[in-house]
Amino acid sequence: MSEKELRAKAARLDEADELAASRKLFALEDPEHPEGVVYLDGNSLGALPHAVPGRLAEVVGREWGELRIRSWTESGWWEAPERVGDRIAPLVGAAPGQIVVGDSTSVNVFKAVVGAVRLAPEGRDEVLVDAVTFPTDGYIAESAARMTGCAVRAVRPDEMAAEVGPRTAAVLVNHVDYRTGELHDLPGVTAAAHAAGALVVADLCHSAGALPVGLDEHRVDLAVGCTYKYLNGGPGSPAYLYIARRHQERFDSPLPGWHGHREPFAMTPEFVPAEGVLRGRVGTPDLLSMLALEAALTVWDGVDIAAVRAKSLALTDFFLQALDTCLPPGRVRLITPTEHERRGSQIALECPDAEQVMERLIARGIVGDFRRPGVLRFGFTPLYTSFTDVERAARVLGEVAEATG
Amino acid sequence: MSEKELRAKAARLDEADELAASRKLFALEDPEHPEGVVYLDGNSLGALPHAVPGRLAEVVGREWGELRIRSWTESGWWEAPERVGDRIAPLVGAAPGQIVVGDSTSVNVFKAVVGAVRLAPEGRDEVLVDAVTFPTDGYIAESAARMTGCAVRAVRPDEMAAEVGPRTAAVLVNHVDYRTGELHDLPGVTAAAHAAGALVVADLCHSAGALPVGLDEHRVDLAVGCTYKYLNGGPGSPAYLYIARRHQERFDSPLPGWHGHREPFAMTPEFVPAEGVLRGRVGTPDLLSMLALEAALTVWDGVDIAAVRAKSLALTDFFLQALDTCLPPGRVRLITPTEHERRGSQIALECPDAEQVMERLIARGIVGDFRRPGVLRFGFTPLYTSFTDVERAARVLGEVAEATG
Repeated sequence: MSEKELRAKAARLDEADELAASRKLFALEDPEHPEGVVYLDGNSLGALPHAVPGRLAEVVGREWGELRIRSWTESGWWEAPERVGDRIAPLVGAAPGQIVVGDSTSVNVFKAVVGAVRLAPEGRDEVLVDAVTFPTDGYIAESAARMTGCAVRAVRPDEMAAEVGPRTAAVLVNHVDYRTGELHDLPGVTAAAHAAGALVVADLCHSAGALPVGLDEHRVDLAVGCTYKYLNGGPGSPAYLYIARRHQERFDSPLPGWHGHREPFAMTPEFVPAEGVLRGRVGTPDLLSMLALEAALTVWDGVDIAAVRAKSLALTDFFLQALDTCLPPGRVRLITPTEHERRGSQIALECPDAEQVMERLIARGIVGDFRRPGVLRFGFTPLYTSFTDVERAARVLGEVAEATG
Repeated sequence: MSEKELRAKAARLDEADELAASRKLFALEDPEHPEGVVYLDGNSLGALPHAVPGRLAEVVGREWGELRIRSWTESGWWEAPERVGDRIAPLVGAAPGQIVVGDSTSVNVFKAVVGAVRLAPEGRDEVLVDAVTFPTDGYIAESAARMTGCAVRAVRPDEMAAEVGPRTAAVLVNHVDYRTGELHDLPGVTAAAHAAGALVVADLCHSAGALPVGLDEHRVDLAVGCTYKYLNGGPGSPAYLYIARRHQERFDSPLPGWHGHREPFAMTPEFVPAEGVLRGRVGTPDLLSMLALEAALTVWDGVDIAAVRAKSLALTDFFLQALDTCLPPGRVRLITPTEHERRGSQIALECPDAEQVMERLIARGIVGDFRRPGVLRFGFTPLYTSFTDVERAARVLGEVAEATG
């Protein structure tokens, strides 16, 4: 396909895009690039939804500044973790009442892995961890294992179903690999873990908001995820914890803070866990970040996650096609699987001078990111990425690759 | 002293108040009370500093909205936890490089207690916990003990020096009691713990920003605190962790997230802790809350914490004197110690109908809070509370007590 044909195809695809209207909900301007940036780093930090600044100004000026302490009841601050959790729930295929928002992903991985070990049958002493995980999951799993008398064993996700065994208490797996963008077989790993009597903890950081997760449908036991990538919650917006309803009554948190108490204001010396998922709460949540996230989630009103997935695949398919046209042969190596069922919403390319290539791309308004040792990552956020963006990114990447190769 | 004399004394004290100018740094208006509110709940949620809204709008609009991912380096996001920690340090008597901000108080109690047990001499299996603690500390200490093979023993702070013994690994003590406002003898407890070979973890939630703490001077080992009370950081603003420099190299966090790694972007499978206090970081911090806190801390520029303490004692002394004049005898019972060296920045009164009394006070613009079963709490924030406020609070409390007694 020629470059001209690519451009025409991009225009046709944008014309037919049923999610195109969502783009205007986001701030995508950049004063240094009046021609616009192509922001393909939403898999690291999502763009700002226009709904956020006004709402945050109200939270600060009215709720904190004027109502002060009264806002804990009158502005609904106390219930925010479960209320915002219920807004995330449909995006990850969870019925209400199973998600609380708060703390970082790392802290939630700790709660979930320790919780899973305590829910597992007696006498199991192994935690299987995704060998290609985003590192923090592995670090925290190691600590959770150490503190519960378990050992960690690192296994590739595609080998987990075969490796889970009678000693395995819990399996911690990433739904999508942060580096390659590979989509793992979460239903398959979950089914195999259950057949072996183990529980699954899924990390949804790189899938939630980009594709259907189906937590309830696939009977995932526990899950965690951040909210600042495809959910656009803002820098360091709080993470979430999913506890399947069937496990809630026995979920035993290693971080039993007062916000997870059945009667927080009884101030009793004994911890009595709250009913349901509320026992996953810990201390006072960062409300400015939490309520900014709540406003950010309004971009999902009326959006069907199946349509998001369809556009995500169309975007990455089109990027791969455009790369075929624009890139000198052999200049980069694709490390993202080409099969749809194994691809998240990101394309990763390897080349020895990746860091330098990414610097030049960013200087020309194409924003992806670089991961050591030589990976270029491009994340595609269906709510605000157009096919014209994709065509431009591929074309500029081709020019940069040509100039530096 | 007559009510008229009280009013005159309040005016004189305000006239001589060297911190009076700080009051204009805060939003203290309330549309429902055009005559003004007397906000004596800064020991629960501090008032909004005027510096916050503009700065937060810039963080959202410019740093997130326009720079997006570049802000991690260009806007100083990555270093915020230690940079904001160094702003808190002088307020609690710590040299730079010993405090990181992030996570909730509860999560930091977990890091600190587990960390202290791991720093203690081998074979110790007891954690002494303040028997009158704010409950979350006790809940979290119980979990920390359970996960490190220790048992918790609850002891009153005034008995800790006598009770700490050869089995004690760590002592967790509140600097100021959240309910009674009693100031505990942190230097004495610390010295006794050290004599017995144990470490001290101090909870500074109710002292930081109200009185000098002297962490370094008294050789406290670890400390935690929230930032939304006397530090005015906003609802749920992140807490902090102090690790005395002499312990940093051996501090072994139970939450070794990637932000506490020596080379976070090396993405290595093994956790290698960062140098110094940075190893107390965990995951991505809530930056909107963190940077709002940073702006809020500008109210401390040029403020001497000794002057804050002097005004705090003058405020609470004057409140007690005014209560003598305004309250019907025997109507309430004072549960805050009257000696300066045992008093924080709060006055707590007990009466059977405390909940009803506080409702009526709030309706009349005097905002304190109620704690079960029958405690009225009044917190005095020296930066924005005037002696005229105190006189009005005592007078209205007298009227309410008279009307409902």
